[in-house]
Amino acid sequence: MNDRLPASLVDRLKEIVAERNVITDDHGRAPFENDWRDQWHGRAAAVVKPGSTQEVAAVVKVLAGERIGIVPQGGNTSMCGGSVPDESGTQVVVSLSRVNRVREVDAANNTMTVEAGCVLASLQELADENGRLFPLSLGAEGSCEIGGNLSTNAGGTGVLRYGNTRDLVLGLEVVLPDGRVWDGLRGLRKDNTGYDLKHLFVGAEGTLGIITAAVLKLFPKPRSVATALAAVASPAAALTPLANLRDAVGERVTGFELISRVCVDLVMKHIPGARDFLPQRYPWYVLVELADSSEGHALATLLEQSLGAAAEEGVILDAVIAASQAQGRELWNLRENISEAQKLDGASIKHDVSVPVSRVPDLIERAGAQLAAKFPGIRIVAFGHAGDGNIHYNCSKSERQEAKQFFAESPQVNHIVYEIVNDLGGSISAEHGLGVLKRDEIKRYKSALEIELMLAIKRTLDPHGLMNPGKVL
Amino acid sequence: MNDRLPASLVDRLKEIVAERNVITDDHGRAPFENDWRDQWHGRAAAVVKPGSTQEVAAVVKVLAGERIGIVPQGGNTSMCGGSVPDESGTQVVVSLSRVNRVREVDAANNTMTVEAGCVLASLQELADENGRLFPLSLGAEGSCEIGGNLSTNAGGTGVLRYGNTRDLVLGLEVVLPDGRVWDGLRGLRKDNTGYDLKHLFVGAEGTLGIITAAVLKLFPKPRSVATALAAVASPAAALTPLANLRDAVGERVTGFELISRVCVDLVMKHIPGARDFLPQRYPWYVLVELADSSEGHALATLLEQSLGAAAEEGVILDAVIAASQAQGRELWNLRENISEAQKLDGASIKHDVSVPVSRVPDLIERAGAQLAAKFPGIRIVAFGHAGDGNIHYNCSKSERQEAKQFFAESPQVNHIVYEIVNDLGGSISAEHGLGVLKRDEIKRYKSALEIELMLAIKRTLDPHGLMNPGKVL
Repeated sequence: MNDRLPASLVDRLKEIVAERNVITDDHGRAPFENDWRDQWHGRAAAVVKPGSTQEVAAVVKVLAGERIGIVPQGGNTSMCGGSVPDESGTQVVVSLSRVNRVREVDAANNTMTVEAGCVLASLQELADENGRLFPLSLGAEGSCEIGGNLSTNAGGTGVLRYGNTRDLVLGLEVVLPDGRVWDGLRGLRKDNTGYDLKHLFVGAEGTLGIITAAVLKLFPKPRSVATALAAVASPAAALTPLANLRDAVGERVTGFELISRVCVDLVMKHIPGARDFLPQRYPWYVLVELADSSEGHALATLLEQSLGAAAEEGVILDAVIAASQAQGRELWNLRENISEAQKLDGASIKHDVSVPVSRVPDLIERAGAQLAAKFPGIRIVAFGHAGDGNIHYNCSKSERQEAKQFFAESPQVNHIVYEIVNDLGGSISAEHGLGVLKRDEIKRYKSALEIELMLAIKRTLDPHGLMNPGKVL
Repeated sequence: MNDRLPASLVDRLKEIVAERNVITDDHGRAPFENDWRDQWHGRAAAVVKPGSTQEVAAVVKVLAGERIGIVPQGGNTSMCGGSVPDESGTQVVVSLSRVNRVREVDAANNTMTVEAGCVLASLQELADENGRLFPLSLGAEGSCEIGGNLSTNAGGTGVLRYGNTRDLVLGLEVVLPDGRVWDGLRGLRKDNTGYDLKHLFVGAEGTLGIITAAVLKLFPKPRSVATALAAVASPAAALTPLANLRDAVGERVTGFELISRVCVDLVMKHIPGARDFLPQRYPWYVLVELADSSEGHALATLLEQSLGAAAEEGVILDAVIAASQAQGRELWNLRENISEAQKLDGASIKHDVSVPVSRVPDLIERAGAQLAAKFPGIRIVAFGHAGDGNIHYNCSKSERQEAKQFFAESPQVNHIVYEIVNDLGGSISAEHGLGVLKRDEIKRYKSALEIELMLAIKRTLDPHGLMNPGKVL
């Protein structure tokens, strides 16, 4: 038993959400106190699981009245420790998992209104059943919840064409830090009636209020897909086919991933059944995907023409176009297995960074040169969404080095990468947010004025600092 | 001469922007004090025309120090009186028209960084010269400035495919109410490092600070266009071809405009050379446009197939597909001449409203019935961007009625329309903003909590209430 909350308070919470939905024992709390990456281990006074917006509001009102810190939690898949309590044992986790109704699907408006606890994959399915696409897609989709996706403005593989989670939402319902409910659940594509409050809560990582429901945009379903893997001499050479493709087929470019040879070698070493798709070795590859709502083979022809033209110019060195959906899937597997292969290969230091697309080659060249000079033997495992400037700029230790020593160097490694990213006008957290992980680091890279504005907004909306304390700011 | 500003203050402003850029005489001030619709006539203490962000900042610092209200102004094409000073003679207009440099075009990043005073049409041309599209397009594009477009989150004809101005911006530079400059000029598609401040300033109508520059998104150029005019029995019947088209051709649907027969009759009556495009009269029409970055005639075929299928189902009663670009232009002229024709026909009351797309038929039916019952003979001139739910729900007086009496009834007419819009989850200002025109009306339709949140943000960022006083809130 955890005895940090007075029994009378626990009783008041149980009155709101029913006894079984207030968890105070160590065993019951544990899954909510520890993150899935096993890097942050907190201790909560209790976990409360309300079943509706009204219950969330009532719980927040009670906790706010007692000045107790509140940690909103969805699927608890944060990469940055944003969803777990600190070690004080004084914070209460408010789990949104039971607030998970689908309120409405309005196919003619291309929207669905859903509650925060809906699991992302179930919303993808719901859209599909209604003849539409909900394009948010990411590794954790089987367990992450839309409230968390919204609170972290999740990225994923659909950003190039459809934007971040922020771009997929029309309206929000939010429980404010004092327990009042802001009903901003509008399903409008045009509404110019004052400040856009929803964009304040999206990406705020639960520090300004708890998102309880949202009106999400739906899109036409893609019905044909064409996929190719092309070899290029350098990241700079990869920009030419990207520009040509976008020029030729517009927003049908749904994927443009950059992959270094180091990545391919790691996958072939560690992932059973992985194979090289081209007869020769090349230093860099791009994985290209086109998708369209029309049926038929027009896309594959467009892709072949565009890559053919690039090959004639000498920009593309070789390429394979998937002959079937299965082969297209195989090409994507190469890309998606890189993280796993890198993990199996031993210690790594990861950077989820973004720069303007035009600066991706600079980032890779400059960071590679500086790291090689300072840490001989370090292996750069660079890959990612080059089409939107988001590179997973990861580093693996040299084969001789001990993991412990390598990790001890991570502050210097991070410093080199982040300074270059900053110099190129980039971001040190492209899609994963700040959470606890980058809360302090960001102060080096954001202007004092921007931090001041963020703090002013935080104090305005959450004057007692109760919402997800210690995260973001 | 205007003598409301102390000479010493005028001298300080002249030191910053040079003598000729501080305008105090009546004749010089007049164009900045009156709106183009000739509905708002203010009086400014002075008009100041800084030539750079640094000059804007210095001017704001001086004015804020003296607690003088500041009215930021771009092309002064606001529909709601948002860009002119009040009648007190104490406010200073800060014109952004001289802050109009193009700072960078980064074609590989699909962005351009431009200053607030750039005229929209010049930015469309700049994008075009760089082989890209900047899709914001609206009636005032020859004189409105991008800073004003951003401050009002302008809509226009490209919203269905490309979104509002808000969706076209990656980064901002803003002079805050105390004269400090927030540099948020990031050209990133992914950046999850804290609260998204830019969305606060976009659409704030200059009440939170002065936008001085922005990083704007560029898109692939459309190279083929297909246009059609189709007759349908009702607004409800128009939703079917919209859904079918989006399903078949995805985001290539760039225009879907609803037009009532009343509108067509007005155009044919007042616009020389206007003609009916179909042999029979029908109650409603939709103007459909598809566009694609690919060349060739594939689009026209898709459009023909889709409309053909709808005709077989009896949803479409008749249709004409433009055989040439010139004919496509002619179809659009019908749509674009409605406002002019309505003006020539006499007194009208206009409503720039939006509802969920699925509710457009409800809006038209319910408002039409209630208005007809209360104001016999009133003519409903309903048309607009049905594809994004934004209807220009305009009313013309009956032919017998005097204009004066009709205008006297406008509060009741507005009330009927706005109550129905509100009941359908809509917005009373879809694309024109609040300005002065709807500042008070909005309080009826937004929750007290939402108004409170907006006021709290206003007070936080502009504690002395100096930025565009009396607008929005």
